[in-house]
Amino acid sequence: MWKPTDVSNLPSPFVHEIRVTWGDCDPARIAYTGRLPVFALDAINAWWEAHLDGDGWFQLELDRNVGTPFVNLAMDFRSPVTPRHRLMCHVWPQRLGEKSITFRVDGYQDEVLCFEGTFICVFTVADVFKSQPAPPDIRAVVTPLIRP
Amino acid sequence: MWKPTDVSNLPSPFVHEIRVTWGDCDPARIAYTGRLPVFALDAINAWWEAHLDGDGWFQLELDRNVGTPFVNLAMDFRSPVTPRHRLMCHVWPQRLGEKSITFRVDGYQDEVLCFEGTFICVFTVADVFKSQPAPPDIRAVVTPLIRP
Amino acid sequence: MWKPTDVSNLPSPFVHEIRVTWGDCDPARIAYTGRLPVFALDAINAWWEAHLDGDGWFQLELDRNVGTPFVNLAMDFRSPVTPRHRLMCHVWPQRLGEKSITFRVDGYQDEVLCFEGTFICVFTVADVFKSQPAPPDIRAVVTPLIRP
Amino acid sequence: MWKPTDVSNLPSPFVHEIRVTWGDCDPARIAYTGRLPVFALDAINAWWEAHLDGDGWFQLELDRNVGTPFVNLAMDFRSPVTPRHRLMCHVWPQRLGEKSITFRVDGYQDEVLCFEGTFICVFTVADVFKSQPAPPDIRAVVTPLIRP
Repeated sequence: MWKPTDVSNLPSPFVHEIRVTWGDCDPARIAYTGRLPVFALDAINAWWEAHLDGDGWFQLELDRNVGTPFVNLAMDFRSPVTPRHRLMCHVWPQRLGEKSITFRVDGYQDEVLCFEGTFICVFTVADVFKSQPAPPDIRAVVTPLIRP
Repeated sequence: MWKPTDVSNLPSPFVHEIRVTWGDCDPARIAYTGRLPVFALDAINAWWEAHLDGDGWFQLELDRNVGTPFVNLAMDFRSPVTPRHRLMCHVWPQRLGEKSITFRVDGYQDEVLCFEGTFICVFTVADVFKSQPAPPDIRAVVTPLIRP
Repeated sequence: MWKPTDVSNLPSPFVHEIRVTWGDCDPARIAYTGRLPVFALDAINAWWEAHLDGDGWFQLELDRNVGTPFVNLAMDFRSPVTPRHRLMCHVWPQRLGEKSITFRVDGYQDEVLCFEGTFICVFTVADVFKSQPAPPDIRAVVTPLIRP
Repeated sequence: MWKPTDVSNLPSPFVHEIRVTWGDCDPARIAYTGRLPVFALDAINAWWEAHLDGDGWFQLELDRNVGTPFVNLAMDFRSPVTPRHRLMCHVWPQRLGEKSITFRVDGYQDEVLCFEGTFICVFTVADVFKSQPAPPDIRAVVTPLIRP
């Protein structure tokens, strides 16, 4: 018998809230396109902070000697972002390769999807800027959170 | 008999919390100087939101036709800002002139003063960019909050 | 007789030079990922200025009532961007649809490809934020510059 | 006999040109206040590049181990900055103390003064973030350019 995909055991995504302001907006009175990737990056950094005991990119790099530079990003802009509502960024890891991690970030305002994007990072040994496999402790944290 | 100034009736300042991140930092691994005025402006905008039923500069301009452009800012940088702690910005109005308002913003991390600054804005009729006296409803909100 | 594609008549791409600075860099001492889409957008705006008698997005919107909001962007990051060299952004229109335009931006430093990206915009009537076909005068300018 | 101050031997100020764009502007259709200190910092960095054989803050820090963190900035905003004209930033050192340097930056558009500001930096040994006297080679470059 056919059964729908059971999503009940999938982890719910992390949500990062952003206060969009006047200074984020351009003369069209919506957030400037150049701010939207920055919002998504802020959300990914917040995801790391939430899942690595408060460590974001800054602590990863300086305290753990792990870099996660971006090699690709792609975003679709669905609806303008404005200061009228908080921007709720849903973040989750979509895929964990041997040396890379792919994040998905969907941004909502007032329950309307404003943008959706994928972001691919590679793991590096930070102080020598050399590619490395995902460190085991990070792999252990990320693996159960993956939602393809 | 001499008595110290009684500060017990002064309003306590509004505090706006900012999440400082990797992207705010420069190669010296502290927040870039150019980000610090932006943090202070974000704090002032948050102050307006908190005291005008959620209306910040965006709503002031578009819904109330009131602009508050800056005519002066001055900041002292006391200690570096980093992503190690949240940046707590204490904001209060120092002075309300007929046509201008002066804000004070002090930024703290881990209870250390990182910067302090004053910011002077004038009131305008937004759609014609003309100076105007502080609107009465705004004056009524601001006046009891002034702390010289 | 077979002939290779003759590229001699293709227009050469427009190049926009960007001065990358300290403030663009993060603690890894390379330009922050969030700055790279902004650089590409600056290059696209400069392309408009160069081909519309000095009119960039600001003049398009305010003087011509034409908006070109972005609906998609995708970038590959090939090599870090640093302040050691000027960033040379090669910009050209790849495709002109009835209501959309696709730009390609390739960023080079010291002749090394740092990033490449595609950016899709739609044409709008700016003051009502409604989709419209590419205005004829703009179509006339863009068409001969298309390089698929 | 009284003589006016002879300014004929004073060095003429360095001018750094900035292309103000759509993305710098806010919904009031003028450059956002938070961008103006950044413009001035860009101009000071360009001043260093012009006077130290191409070395700006990035090269000062990484190649010369000299930091120049800001301890104070003060700006007056005289007229709105827009994308209608290039922003011409006049930069010069006003004062060289034992351990500090004060810059003046005046921003003009279409020969109208838009802002004027002073910016005080201290010299540090970059890798230990310790105050130091102005390095002799830098002092030698700066001294003849001072205009109080």
